Amino acid sequence: HEKESPQQKIIEKFGLPLTGAETRFYTNHVLSYDQAKKTPRWVAEHISNVKLLGKADRRHCKFRPDPGIPEMFTAHNEDYLGSGWSRGHMAPAGDNKASEQSMAETFYLSNIVPQNYENNAGFWNRLEMYCRDLTKRFEDVWIVSGPLVLPQVGDDGRKTVSYQLIGKDEVAVPTHLYKVILAQKNSSSDTLALGAFVVPNRPIGFDHQLTEFQVSLSDLERISGLSFFPKADRTQKNLCELDSCRLMDFKEFTLYITGRKVAGARTSVKLEKAMAELREAGITPDDYLIKLYQEKKQELLHKEHPEGKSGY
Amino acid sequence: HEKESPQQKIIEKFGLPLTGAETRFYTNHVLSYDQAKKTPRWVAEHISNVKLLGKADRRHCKFRPDPGIPEMFTAHNEDYLGSGWSRGHMAPAGDNKASEQSMAETFYLSNIVPQNYENNAGFWNRLEMYCRDLTKRFEDVWIVSGPLVLPQVGDDGRKTVSYQLIGKDEVAVPTHLYKVILAQKNSSSDTLALGAFVVPNRPIGFDHQLTEFQVSLSDLERISGLSFFPKADRTQKNLCELDSCRLMDFKEFTLYITGRKVAGARTSVKLEKAMAELREAGITPDDYLIKLYQEKKQELLHKEHPEGKSGY
Ligand SMILES: [Mg+2]
Ligand SMILES: [Mg+2]
Repeated sequence: HEKESPQQKIIEKFGLPLTGAETRFYTNHVLSYDQAKKTPRWVAEHISNVKLLGKADRRHCKFRPDPGIPEMFTAHNEDYLGSGWSRGHMAPAGDNKASEQSMAETFYLSNIVPQNYENNAGFWNRLEMYCRDLTKRFEDVWIVSGPLVLPQVGDDGRKTVSYQLIGKDEVAVPTHLYKVILAQKNSSSDTLALGAFVVPNRPIGFDHQLTEFQVSLSDLERISGLSFFPKADRTQKNLCELDSCRLMDFKEFTLYITGRKVAGARTSVKLEKAMAELREAGITPDDYLIKLYQEKKQELLHKEHPEGKSGY
Repeated sequence: HEKESPQQKIIEKFGLPLTGAETRFYTNHVLSYDQAKKTPRWVAEHISNVKLLGKADRRHCKFRPDPGIPEMFTAHNEDYLGSGWSRGHMAPAGDNKASEQSMAETFYLSNIVPQNYENNAGFWNRLEMYCRDLTKRFEDVWIVSGPLVLPQVGDDGRKTVSYQLIGKDEVAVPTHLYKVILAQKNSSSDTLALGAFVVPNRPIGFDHQLTEFQVSLSDLERISGLSFFPKADRTQKNLCELDSCRLMDFKEFTLYITGRKVAGARTSVKLEKAMAELREAGITPDDYLIKLYQEKKQELLHKEHPEGKSGY
């Protein structure tokens, strides 16, 4: 701003109020925190095919207060536990396999909002997978995610915003979550594809398409009070026209989830349980899953019967 | 923050989201705006005995959108008109009699929140008067004012924040307003007096004392997400112990309001109406008001009957 007047300097004598909304930088994400709601306002990240490779494992990570947020304004795990709401990542752990450090930072509660369990494990999870899938077709993908509190309209036309607070720290449960995706084919391409989505914070089944939740960027800006990608020109193509915006269907998703369970199984019992669940869902394993299963079966057999006494 | 890494620079390539919460400086107040709620987050000012003198008149001022707020994020008068809510100043017009310019700036909608009419004209008005009265006993007074949305606790212990949005721009109606007052006897005094108040955004009668609404500064900080007077040490005295925190009672307030009506009357009819209302309220005019009345009566007599034909 312009140089302050003597009058303005007096107003500032004991300091102006701090909102804590300043930009915070982490290894692989950037965010602005909301000290009243105890959640982020927005979380920005960039992903690419090569950045998604790696072996960092979320099982080594623990949710915890961000050491950079003043104690008075931070959420704690106790706020979430038993609240009926899951701890939903804004910058996903799965976007940070390249670095234990950057993955651990996504578990800071500054990157977390109270999210419906089924939404977190289901629709939102598939949306995150779609973003990662985009890196196969776009060299660079930028994503901004965050919570929203949107109004309901009463019979009298009156608009009311209502949201729950959970835990001792009164963490605000968003009514919706947003994601803005900006994708660039390659660095020499002028074409940017943009999609903005507003997803209700409740279970969303496989009968819903991502495009149902698409909104214009300016509508999202108006309701969120934020301006996104201010340095990009506003002539982007619609991501859902340039690309599919198709999320995994039930079968693909179930095969994927079973694959993760199979790969992560630590006992034969758990391995067989994952495959049994798949059969019960009426889904035939594909070649990839069969191969994964057989390798894991051998591995666990050797572990559980190290001396080859499989007939024991 | 620390120097950004190459990774962080890529995230920023098309700009990071803008919250619009940056500090905005006006002639005699400073504020941070909330682009989602279309109200300020906080408004800071400084008043002193000498700064309160002057002849700037609010009748020359018009409420209007702050030209510095992007059109997409500003409130408009139409949002308020007919909404059932008044346009409540955070930095009061009455603190800016010294300058037409600074008073006009307090009518920017960036300094305004939807406020209950009776609260605005009554309790909050008296609180503002108390602040001005403080300048008789304290050389410097700093005030920060703003809106809050506070939860209600249901029968099941669940905390829910609910607030209305008004108008096409969906201006958020606060459930409460806060005011933090920091007062210094004189510039060589080490003693600072501090009072923090949270007032419900509804009618509050003369049967309520200001002290009923006093809260600790840290409680206000926790619920607002703001840190106040960060450069002041935290050993202030309680304003309500050092000073009275007594607002004008019904009689004092009615005499004051009548005085303003008398001074502003443009016709004899209006002048007599103001005095009649006072009598109906059962209040005897004090010497100051009687003098004001008689002077105004003469003035209007000459104006309405310029040739002295009062018996006409
Ligand atoms: Mg998740
Ligand atoms: Mg007012």
